[in-house]
Amino acid sequence: MGTTQLETVPEPKYWHLKTVLAEALDSEFAVGQILPNERELAARYGVARATLRQALEQLEFEGRLQRRRGVGTTVAPPRVGVDVAPVEDSWPGAPGDAWQTDGCEEVSPPARVARLLDASTTEPVSAVRRTRRAHGQTVATELLYVPCAATPGISGSGAARGHAALRALHHLELEGQERSVELGSARADDARQLDRLPGAPVLVVTTRYLSGGATMAVAVSTYRADTCRLTFGDTGAVELLAS
Amino acid sequence: MGTTQLETVPEPKYWHLKTVLAEALDSEFAVGQILPNERELAARYGVARATLRQALEQLEFEGRLQRRRGVGTTVAPPRVGVDVAPVEDSWPGAPGDAWQTDGCEEVSPPARVARLLDASTTEPVSAVRRTRRAHGQTVATELLYVPCAATPGISGSGAARGHAALRALHHLELEGQERSVELGSARADDARQLDRLPGAPVLVVTTRYLSGGATMAVAVSTYRADTCRLTFGDTGAVELLAS
Repeated sequence: MGTTQLETVPEPKYWHLKTVLAEALDSEFAVGQILPNERELAARYGVARATLRQALEQLEFEGRLQRRRGVGTTVAPPRVGVDVAPVEDSWPGAPGDAWQTDGCEEVSPPARVARLLDASTTEPVSAVRRTRRAHGQTVATELLYVPCAATPGISGSGAARGHAALRALHHLELEGQERSVELGSARADDARQLDRLPGAPVLVVTTRYLSGGATMAVAVSTYRADTCRLTFGDTGAVELLAS
Repeated sequence: MGTTQLETVPEPKYWHLKTVLAEALDSEFAVGQILPNERELAARYGVARATLRQALEQLEFEGRLQRRRGVGTTVAPPRVGVDVAPVEDSWPGAPGDAWQTDGCEEVSPPARVARLLDASTTEPVSAVRRTRRAHGQTVATELLYVPCAATPGISGSGAARGHAALRALHHLELEGQERSVELGSARADDARQLDRLPGAPVLVVTTRYLSGGATMAVAVSTYRADTCRLTFGDTGAVELLAS
């Protein structure tokens, strides 16, 4: 990084600084490299500590920097492409599914999930907890809701119940899937699993699995927004976007 | 809202307050209603102004609140479902396309776009500027990059050039589309069009259009993350997720 002094610009000062820092990250720093401390950086760019901090926060939000206690601020690796539907037209838990089943409980579904299931919130569902790993990190957590009415005879809790609920789905014909993606912030339990702080930005993918003209399962998946780029493909050549 | 005093909890205080406030928004407030001022809210919940402000910022980030100068803080309407590919398997600009063409310029593509186009950054492309409106607001801006080599004879600038570039694509056979979704922050020009401040969270959708075994166009679409939920469907019944 040079000793660039920032000129007065119409956009917020921290925003311009962010742009300058982003260019420096591209040209002068390597992935994983530790940034100079805040005092040094503020002096180098001739800005107040508060302005610098805002710019660093923005770069962290955009996934360009990682800040970890005891380590400092490092240059983040490029986001990892994660295919949202790697096994097309299949139920969760089909061969090749990237998710691991961690547990399962009987719960009343949240209001929004009940609406998608065309059910009342008092009808019990199996909530299957799953996690997805990629490139050595947990990139997503999931709660997969399956109405107990669709999986008769299932009881107990834990991963065994989760596997049984998934197996029951596989006996049905899958007619279609629909997805939505929106911005969210990590709840405390998801944050812990994703190695993030509560409130960290996440991408929430909601999937409806359709069978027999009805919604037979709803998955709410929470992806790390700092390290993931979600990919959707229909040609099988999704790798290019993932790079 | 009651006079709930917050107990000490292991998660950050503002986070707990955010949860309490979110429940109050559901049960006691209507969409569009103006919230009491910060002083009053802080007193009501027995928290410091700084804590309250953090919780309000989080709720704004999650699309539950809107803060506008001169109006105050209001309860946001639910997010609007926006179908990312409403006209399946068609080029941009096909009948039914939700986007409006605003202009077009000849540019060198950004490095990432050039990589997706299998081109060098020195080969010129037409950058077609488009916007998408839904429910009375501009929900997304787009830059659609089309290599000039694929659209011989095109020149000039402005919307006319944009329309010509789209028409040229329609003579080619579309073999597939691939998309990725990631979190971004609005650049100053996009922010202005989206009626947001620079740095506001956005969902960036990158689409590759494939023809003749090559990428013939790349669209980079920037959606408001506060008001939009992106929907992806393969059954035509996406409306349910959009509600």
